Amino acid sequence: MEPVIHPAFNAADPQAPRAVELPKAYRLLNHGPTVLVSSAYAGHANVMAAAWNAGLDFTPAKVMVVIDKGTWTRELVEASGRFALNVPARQIARQTRAVGTTSGRDAPGNDKYAQYGLSHFRGAVLDLPLVAGCVAWLECRVIPEPHNERAHDLFIGEAIAAWADPRVFSDGHWHFEGHDDLRTLHYVAGGSFLTIGDEIQVDISE
Amino acid sequence: MEPVIHPAFNAADPQAPRAVELPKAYRLLNHGPTVLVSSAYAGHANVMAAAWNAGLDFTPAKVMVVIDKGTWTRELVEASGRFALNVPARQIARQTRAVGTTSGRDAPGNDKYAQYGLSHFRGAVLDLPLVAGCVAWLECRVIPEPHNERAHDLFIGEAIAAWADPRVFSDGHWHFEGHDDLRTLHYVAGGSFLTIGDEIQVDISE
Repeated sequence: MEPVIHPAFNAADPQAPRAVELPKAYRLLNHGPTVLVSSAYAGHANVMAAAWNAGLDFTPAKVMVVIDKGTWTRELVEASGRFALNVPARQIARQTRAVGTTSGRDAPGNDKYAQYGLSHFRGAVLDLPLVAGCVAWLECRVIPEPHNERAHDLFIGEAIAAWADPRVFSDGHWHFEGHDDLRTLHYVAGGSFLTIGDEIQVDISE
Repeated sequence: MEPVIHPAFNAADPQAPRAVELPKAYRLLNHGPTVLVSSAYAGHANVMAAAWNAGLDFTPAKVMVVIDKGTWTRELVEASGRFALNVPARQIARQTRAVGTTSGRDAPGNDKYAQYGLSHFRGAVLDLPLVAGCVAWLECRVIPEPHNERAHDLFIGEAIAAWADPRVFSDGHWHFEGHDDLRTLHYVAGGSFLTIGDEIQVDISE
């Protein structure tokens, strides 16, 4: 059965995001990419970068991400009870770095997307702004954990829908060969990112 | 000032692990590698793989990692209050996969290291078995969080010491060029790993 195509896209578009089965959604984060956290509340939309994220459970599909107290994202996520994790690719490395260094509170019209030339499309389930130019997207509902949020800035979410760019993720696996611009970004510090490399298949059955 | 050389190594060895300043220890995990969690208690030493890990704070240097209830590692970590996160490289991909699929409870003599031909050296601070063939090591003391441990299998630790292989990490940055065997491993599923690729420097000051 062909995967469902994201409703914001033309069904004939071979690059349109395809649905990822939720028990396999952790695979979008399992290799440790830096993500963009996108959020929306009361007519505002925002986006920030976050390297401190990971899977947390398979079923239901849970994820975790650190969102600092000082951020506008934090305010929007707390007010709305939802966030999306977007997995950016090399083609938007500059924007990924930029949205990780400034606040939407300081952006013209509070619009970081416009400020840095990023666009977004509407998430299929939770009405979140999903970031164009990314290669995977998880729409998440916050599972309230007051201690973790307060003590560690740690947010836990349940992924309600997940999507991936079929050029580099299909049948539950990443395949970046031939798509250098779509390789995921893995932040280190000081503007230095590592891009993801190639696959190795490790067989231990012999 | 030259970084401190790990006391288990000969000071003249150019490959000997060097100390990483603790406020920069997060950089060893920031790019999202799969780690090996090593543990020790009452004469036993064990090791397992864990893709679900991330940084959590800079100072003190905190990390988080998911350790399933069923594992022997969990038992040793709970009994001892400490664990090490070891960052494995391509040169031990086969062993990384192997220790991620079986339990030390089932290993001959309960020794997964011997079972899979891995060796370890003694951590400088917390007397933990650090895994040879890795490229970075964090010696961590558990910060007890009963709710996270019970509800999410999530362990939070403070890194008390951190080390890296100077061939691929120095001055706070990774540099894998020319060292393909030392590239970090990023697990997806089903024996498929992605290896880390090359660095891009993103300047947004223009």
